[in-house]
Amino acid sequence: MSLDEIRPSLPLSDVSSRSSSSCGTAVPDSAAPDAASALSPPSRPPLPHAPRQPAETVVTTGPLPGSRRTWLLGADTDGELRVPMREVVLSTGDSVVLYDTSGPYTDPTVNIDVRRGLAPLRAPWIDARGDTETSVGGGVGVGGRAEGENGAGVRTDGDNGAPLETVNGQVGAIGGRQVRRGARALDRGALTQLGYARRGEITREMEFVGVREGLPAETVRAEIAAGRAVLPANVNHPESEPMAIGRAFLVKINANLGNSAVTSSIAEEVEKMVWATRWGADTVMDLSTGADIHRTREWILRNSPVPVGTVPIYEALEQVGGRPEELTWAAYRDAVIRQCEQGVDYMTVHAGVLARYVPLTARRRTGIVSRGGAILAAWCRAHQQENFLYTHFEELCEILAAYDVTFSLGDGLRPGSVSDANDEAQLAELATLGELTQVAWRHDVQVMVEGPGHVPLHLVEENVRLQRELCHDAPFYTLGPLTTDIAPGYDHITSAIGAAVIGWHGTAMLCYVTPKEHLGLPDRDDVKAGVIAYKIAAHAADLAKGHPGARAWDDALSDARFAFRWADQFHLALDPETARAFHDETLPAPAAKSAHFCSMCGPHFCSMRLSQQVRSDSGEPAPTGPGLVQAAPRS
Amino acid sequence: MSLDEIRPSLPLSDVSSRSSSSCGTAVPDSAAPDAASALSPPSRPPLPHAPRQPAETVVTTGPLPGSRRTWLLGADTDGELRVPMREVVLSTGDSVVLYDTSGPYTDPTVNIDVRRGLAPLRAPWIDARGDTETSVGGGVGVGGRAEGENGAGVRTDGDNGAPLETVNGQVGAIGGRQVRRGARALDRGALTQLGYARRGEITREMEFVGVREGLPAETVRAEIAAGRAVLPANVNHPESEPMAIGRAFLVKINANLGNSAVTSSIAEEVEKMVWATRWGADTVMDLSTGADIHRTREWILRNSPVPVGTVPIYEALEQVGGRPEELTWAAYRDAVIRQCEQGVDYMTVHAGVLARYVPLTARRRTGIVSRGGAILAAWCRAHQQENFLYTHFEELCEILAAYDVTFSLGDGLRPGSVSDANDEAQLAELATLGELTQVAWRHDVQVMVEGPGHVPLHLVEENVRLQRELCHDAPFYTLGPLTTDIAPGYDHITSAIGAAVIGWHGTAMLCYVTPKEHLGLPDRDDVKAGVIAYKIAAHAADLAKGHPGARAWDDALSDARFAFRWADQFHLALDPETARAFHDETLPAPAAKSAHFCSMCGPHFCSMRLSQQVRSDSGEPAPTGPGLVQAAPRS
Repeated sequence: MSLDEIRPSLPLSDVSSRSSSSCGTAVPDSAAPDAASALSPPSRPPLPHAPRQPAETVVTTGPLPGSRRTWLLGADTDGELRVPMREVVLSTGDSVVLYDTSGPYTDPTVNIDVRRGLAPLRAPWIDARGDTETSVGGGVGVGGRAEGENGAGVRTDGDNGAPLETVNGQVGAIGGRQVRRGARALDRGALTQLGYARRGEITREMEFVGVREGLPAETVRAEIAAGRAVLPANVNHPESEPMAIGRAFLVKINANLGNSAVTSSIAEEVEKMVWATRWGADTVMDLSTGADIHRTREWILRNSPVPVGTVPIYEALEQVGGRPEELTWAAYRDAVIRQCEQGVDYMTVHAGVLARYVPLTARRRTGIVSRGGAILAAWCRAHQQENFLYTHFEELCEILAAYDVTFSLGDGLRPGSVSDANDEAQLAELATLGELTQVAWRHDVQVMVEGPGHVPLHLVEENVRLQRELCHDAPFYTLGPLTTDIAPGYDHITSAIGAAVIGWHGTAMLCYVTPKEHLGLPDRDDVKAGVIAYKIAAHAADLAKGHPGARAWDDALSDARFAFRWADQFHLALDPETARAFHDETLPAPAAKSAHFCSMCGPHFCSMRLSQQVRSDSGEPAPTGPGLVQAAPRS
Repeated sequence: MSLDEIRPSLPLSDVSSRSSSSCGTAVPDSAAPDAASALSPPSRPPLPHAPRQPAETVVTTGPLPGSRRTWLLGADTDGELRVPMREVVLSTGDSVVLYDTSGPYTDPTVNIDVRRGLAPLRAPWIDARGDTETSVGGGVGVGGRAEGENGAGVRTDGDNGAPLETVNGQVGAIGGRQVRRGARALDRGALTQLGYARRGEITREMEFVGVREGLPAETVRAEIAAGRAVLPANVNHPESEPMAIGRAFLVKINANLGNSAVTSSIAEEVEKMVWATRWGADTVMDLSTGADIHRTREWILRNSPVPVGTVPIYEALEQVGGRPEELTWAAYRDAVIRQCEQGVDYMTVHAGVLARYVPLTARRRTGIVSRGGAILAAWCRAHQQENFLYTHFEELCEILAAYDVTFSLGDGLRPGSVSDANDEAQLAELATLGELTQVAWRHDVQVMVEGPGHVPLHLVEENVRLQRELCHDAPFYTLGPLTTDIAPGYDHITSAIGAAVIGWHGTAMLCYVTPKEHLGLPDRDDVKAGVIAYKIAAHAADLAKGHPGARAWDDALSDARFAFRWADQFHLALDPETARAFHDETLPAPAAKSAHFCSMCGPHFCSMRLSQQVRSDSGEPAPTGPGLVQAAPRS
């Protein structure tokens, strides 16, 4: 299959043109670090205590209370590689440096304009590799390439200044923008991170991840080369800050966004993305199913500092009027290509829902609960044919390889209740996903594998063991799992329990569940509740796995707690605003911030105060603050 | 030691007299079941959908939406033993019968008056055993017995009609009430449930628990006799509905209540108790430390349908002006006796904090974080003597035996951070608690053992294993454990993760943690958040342990979900009000309650709708509702 063959064959009605969106300045000179050491924090303005929300944007910006954006420098890049981190500055003068997913939004020196999108951090790296051809056009014709293409290896970063359009002051249609496409340069081998890793080359993205995770870049390369990790980084999403998903790294979390036909607007979804990454989402998935799928995704992609995942069959289904039986490989392929060219970093593909597995779900308590799985089961039934994603899987690999889009092999037959956990349908599909993993790897396409769902605690570890065996150690990406079905309204908790345990046993990324699961579309508050619950689960898993440096964060907070450094406790908290608000609910006076008790026990019954007295009576040293603690130590 | 010797030696300034409080009528004739079968629900009024809150009470009453209080009958008691359960009546006409901790407050036929307290359900059973002597007096002298005692075996249930006093319309001093005391009848052997169990006798309380748990009463007796379970039931708390804590039973949860010197009132604490049991608390602990300790506890006890636990050293410390070094065994003993006579069902006793263990905490990150542990460590340091609770432990056993108060051997040296988990101090104390367990058992006193605290996931199972080994299989009662320290404001979640896992591995009761942990005193909303998180953890543990019948609840909810019976989903939820509110936030119209989708996915993308179509296309039977599902099946 040639690249021409993978151009869309359907009109792209709402994508007339597209321009580069590199207008923001993520790293102005004034914010450059003033020391060669990655551990020396750059001089920065005073810490504000509330996020600012400029009138011209619709998203939340500004640092978290007590934190500032700082940079670690790549050791081998003469200071050129600068990896953003969250630095919590303590009252002792020490700092705690934490992994940061929030992107430039928490940097007060960056001018955020969602109509223009983020700066293309990775564009120079992609250009330097010289293995992409780039297409720029004012419009996309039917079944053909866009006009005005540039040659291979040329990346058009010149910005024509045309912002993403707004309609009536709201985020709306994308118009007047040039289309730019990246594709594989045929003579250089696979442009995927897997391709480079297998060829022994460490990309800038891998170096970035190494610094970010506190691991040698060579470890990053080796994990990717072995298929044990992925680094989702579509060449058309240069705005993203590289991250890796794999057992050797910190456990990651994903936040699902996206409107449905019933509710929500594009503007709300962009803010949800910024909001989710502010609280710690490592990736987001745009699961929109209503109108404006393409435009919603464009706004999210151009503004997202984290990899974006999608489920392309949703768009394909919209294209055929919502009727599963009318789906075709061509319609699906075109949706995939549109999304590849837009910059989607990973795609859920339900290629393991084989026709012969569908009857295995008939006696289940809750049938098929994956939307993609149900759509494909309906298609297989209607046509009495094998799932077209399975039969066309090699073609799909060729497409994804051309943009370095990562497969997220979907678990279309995951259980929808604890009653259906680890059943024949689920495990049959898992075996097929293992087979497809090897097919994708032959094409140098990165792969992760999705997992359940609803699983009682005693069956959680078995899920990881089987996935590792059947899927050859490809990274596992699980939804929850929910450990009980009795608590709608609290499924962020029912599933955080399962998520922590499955993460401990080796799951690489946890897809969050919000309190609205099973009940409705999450709003901004639900997104935050889900992200926080999953950051807790992921960190609990990191501690249990013994990730080097993970405990430094806990230790710094415990030290602050024992020393009654209340402000430091708040600032080190996963959610500083809530921690402070809860404390201040009963003891709002400034003096209480240095009190050696809180309202929970009162002054006479504070165990920590008594314990400190015991310690000082016995001549033991007083507790000290940490030195510079780096939760993700530098390589 | 004679009984005279265990009378208080300090003035009880705020307990001048006390009367029986048996004025409520929990089971009026009109509410009696009309069929001999335990599974036939009695005829009941229509289900209300909002809790009523009569003007004359300060507590929440009325059933949960879609639920009603029903009764299971004891098989061997000619229908005399009636065990209250929560019956969820589905739209299919079927019912799901669930364990219910809410007491008479959810029964609309019971006239609730917190000034008079609940009916003494167990009084006739205690009387019938004839092994208590009862003291009734108008006041308590210093160091002597109260006036007006009755003879052994006589229980004064006559109510003089004097309500608990209110001050300015608020819950206030207890006055004008007679003191009534239960004590061991010396010629009948231990009156404790452990004593009866060891003698091979099945008490009414054990029968009640058997029906409630769906297990044979003989199993209940055998578990108690072996020390593997406790049935906390002070003879002076006849208002409580019997329940058991042990590995063979459903995992239980405790909610901590109680004011501190800084905030909260008695009225608030009584409502928190009712509120906590409404959402599922199996026991409550009154941890009040401010003024009015005794009065607060009296109000809670007289109104509590669940066992009440305390930490007597808090009251003892208040008696000596808040100075740990001035504590004496006599002051402590008197506080214990006052609480025994008031009806406290279990007491946390930090007898394992030995003087030689205190130095082991000196190098810890967070020292001693148990209030009791810190107080006793301070006392040991000040006096350079062994912990008086350890040296007087046998006397304590004699006192607790006389009222059937259960030991909750406190973990005064539990870790306060993941950094300190499973350290030498913690494990040294645990070994001592094992030694004390056997001492208590020699006195026929029931025992459970408290545990951590803060523990990373990979060390959780080891805690249970060590506790079982060192403490001879006595029930384990753990606080959380919190699995990370980085999320103040969300410690109900950090700890629900640990609680689910430790419950799965055999912990019998989980002490809840609220979102306010480490930050302030929980309010009513925090209590609910903590209880719900812990009900989730306990149920997830029950599922993982394979408790017979536990999954019936999940299955009934999953069936309702798959059949789009929205109202049934809400009614079966742990929190029906929140589930409905979340759904109605985006789809409030009544028609949406029968829609085959929700706002999360919209109509075209509802996997369950598609899955049902696949199923009907293939001629598979439609999903059916459950029959009468009993989550705790009858023996």
